[in-house]
Amino acid sequence: MSVESYLDANYPAALEDLKAFCRIPSVSTDPAYADGIKAAANFVADRLRRAGFSNVEQLTTDGHPAVFGEIIGDPALPTFLVYGHYDVQPPDPLEKWKTPPFEPDIRDGRLYARGVSDDKGPLLIPILVAEAFMREEGRLPVNLKVLIEGEEESGSPSFEPVLEKHRDKLRCDLVLSADGAMWRPDKPSITVASRGLAALDVTITGASKDLHSGRHGGSAPNPIAALATLLASMHGPDGRVTVDGFLDGTSPPDPLIISAIEASQFDSAAYYREIGVEGGDPIDTGRELLIRQWLEPTLEFNGISGGYQGAGTKTVIPNTASVKITCRLIAGQKPDHVIASITRHLETRLPNGFVLEVHRHGPGSEADFIDPDLPALAVSEGVLGELLGQKPLRVAMGATIPIGSAFRNHLGCASIFFSFSTADEDYHAPNEFFRLDNFKLGMKAWTMLLRRLAAI
Amino acid sequence: MSVESYLDANYPAALEDLKAFCRIPSVSTDPAYADGIKAAANFVADRLRRAGFSNVEQLTTDGHPAVFGEIIGDPALPTFLVYGHYDVQPPDPLEKWKTPPFEPDIRDGRLYARGVSDDKGPLLIPILVAEAFMREEGRLPVNLKVLIEGEEESGSPSFEPVLEKHRDKLRCDLVLSADGAMWRPDKPSITVASRGLAALDVTITGASKDLHSGRHGGSAPNPIAALATLLASMHGPDGRVTVDGFLDGTSPPDPLIISAIEASQFDSAAYYREIGVEGGDPIDTGRELLIRQWLEPTLEFNGISGGYQGAGTKTVIPNTASVKITCRLIAGQKPDHVIASITRHLETRLPNGFVLEVHRHGPGSEADFIDPDLPALAVSEGVLGELLGQKPLRVAMGATIPIGSAFRNHLGCASIFFSFSTADEDYHAPNEFFRLDNFKLGMKAWTMLLRRLAAI
Repeated sequence: MSVESYLDANYPAALEDLKAFCRIPSVSTDPAYADGIKAAANFVADRLRRAGFSNVEQLTTDGHPAVFGEIIGDPALPTFLVYGHYDVQPPDPLEKWKTPPFEPDIRDGRLYARGVSDDKGPLLIPILVAEAFMREEGRLPVNLKVLIEGEEESGSPSFEPVLEKHRDKLRCDLVLSADGAMWRPDKPSITVASRGLAALDVTITGASKDLHSGRHGGSAPNPIAALATLLASMHGPDGRVTVDGFLDGTSPPDPLIISAIEASQFDSAAYYREIGVEGGDPIDTGRELLIRQWLEPTLEFNGISGGYQGAGTKTVIPNTASVKITCRLIAGQKPDHVIASITRHLETRLPNGFVLEVHRHGPGSEADFIDPDLPALAVSEGVLGELLGQKPLRVAMGATIPIGSAFRNHLGCASIFFSFSTADEDYHAPNEFFRLDNFKLGMKAWTMLLRRLAAI
Repeated sequence: MSVESYLDANYPAALEDLKAFCRIPSVSTDPAYADGIKAAANFVADRLRRAGFSNVEQLTTDGHPAVFGEIIGDPALPTFLVYGHYDVQPPDPLEKWKTPPFEPDIRDGRLYARGVSDDKGPLLIPILVAEAFMREEGRLPVNLKVLIEGEEESGSPSFEPVLEKHRDKLRCDLVLSADGAMWRPDKPSITVASRGLAALDVTITGASKDLHSGRHGGSAPNPIAALATLLASMHGPDGRVTVDGFLDGTSPPDPLIISAIEASQFDSAAYYREIGVEGGDPIDTGRELLIRQWLEPTLEFNGISGGYQGAGTKTVIPNTASVKITCRLIAGQKPDHVIASITRHLETRLPNGFVLEVHRHGPGSEADFIDPDLPALAVSEGVLGELLGQKPLRVAMGATIPIGSAFRNHLGCASIFFSFSTADEDYHAPNEFFRLDNFKLGMKAWTMLLRRLAAI
């Protein structure tokens, strides 16, 4: 039978594989999930072996292991490295999930589970396709390596050391990323640029302990007030980041991308309706929404905490307050310099009576982009165009896939994003889902892709 | 034997009573502690009966019951009402307690437990003293009523309805409050004025759900940023509240109190050292610290929350962020008007794209003060002066005892604060304690007080 027929016939088993994978709570940022991380790494390694991969091993790191495997049929053929990640975002807030995050549930052709769209579904597809080739043809059209890491959702702190240490093992002509996302459900797209990332926590401490807000109110330093003042100083009324040095190294965006954005006639009113914000674009910036999402850097507050958070009131002046910050970076911004600029901004504005602590998460990553003339890019676009009946849009990406610049720096090769998740699948929010039509479509597409890449 | 000797001989049993009382987790603001509240109300009622009080009953309310009892020996004698509260502050943050909050522990002559200083220790004293009189003399020098409420730490929402409904039962010549606190461990004091209270929660909502900060960063409204901007707008650089209408109804402070404060030569550098703040007064206000603590209103942030608060990072734009606010009010400020002013301040500054929700806690209370010529005030000062060898200081109080204005409004009588807790006993923080010397001293003082009040 053909590879395609094999994939059709084995679709029920593939779906069970995906559900089993999603039952594993592989949250990488929280040590409480250490067992889930181990189980997910084992799942990937076992699945690679069953699919016919050789030299399957877990590459140990200071954090969670990356899983490697390969099928090298003929050294004369080109070699591609498939990238994905088995770790997932934390499931909080739990109470907002309609079904539990680690109990996969199918509703209306969608599989709901934490991590199903980012990145368990998309990464399983090329493994299933390789298995079909091995079963039906006994070989792949190209040489394939696979590297599935376990720290993508915590800023990939061990990823560059892995690339550095295993440079020979991982050597390839091109990376094919199963991570990333199509832009819209109704329109195929290929991501050709993505923003970088820098992450940090900031904690402000006032008194040495919590104090009664009656006795001490008006005299004791309140760290919530100090933190609010600091945070309020980091953006202008137009939404732009006001931190000195934040934009160092950047250049104005490429006019070609701006024209592409303008040509796309993106409906920002529909976007705001979709995310539940009344009255259209809330900020009067004078800049297209897609320019802000794709081409401008951000500084977002991801979480804030301090003092009493239970029911009712507690008349306390807390002694600390904290905020979690992540920045999306554009070409030219260096994570180190961005963190230093923010730290300096906070230090110089810290009111008297407080102590500031900045804790950085991971090395961060620079923005990345692909050479528009890369032959594999045209092949990928061809596959998607044929399967979906329309030429895919080349899009930039607001989110970060830190691997782009890492692969470029360490292996000297580009990365093509060939993922079948879609950007609306709530992958960092409650009720994450993956469209099962795209699970099937992805298998067809990867089958075509591997065949055609043999010829470039 | 004398009342005094009885109290001495029974001190070990009294200490066991206090420890048993402190083992009951009677947190009033959190429904999770409903059983503790019930148990504490029962404990008080039983203890009153054992002490010889009549007509002991639990006065039901929409919230937690208040416990009543009385010993009316001779209608010709003056009648005093002892006030206290059996509820306690939440014990969070639990990890900062050296011994568990509801397992009383004696170290260095101090009993450590949540609620021991505020207000379980102080309220037990007059009950123990009444018991000693009844056992040894078969009567009290005065008529005594007791009203111990269970909602003081959540703003006393049912207290005024109780006074209203049971006005006849509670009628008295003067209230003696076992709640309140001495100012300093080394100096006796009597509180003659206290600040009022208004409490509210504020929640800001942006999108209808949490969003990925990569894809949506730069376009989706971030409620943490909006909340920070709003909070930063509520105080000036001198620490004063900048909310329009907040000060309506107030007058400049009485010059006599200002002179008393200046005469006290309060050591603000020592204060800041004690609370663990380096470098003295952090705000350059030009106003004495005690003036800010006693005579100026405050608006303090007691807790803030929003988005991801776990370990590591989560690249999310949360859809809500909340803050808990309490204000301390001075003479002339009405809680209703203060809440309305804050709400208007927030509404008019709310950035586009957000929804604001204000939730008020309890009715709040106005500031209170005592007639300086009240005979019972001189009696109280006399008792403390004799026992401690120095005339007590008349002090104002930054904190709120909402009962002052409530008793004045509903029963038409003043309240004298005669408490033996001290303001440094961490009563809204981890490791709350009560000095056992003051437990004993309090029994001596209440014995003298009841004898002398018979003569006024």
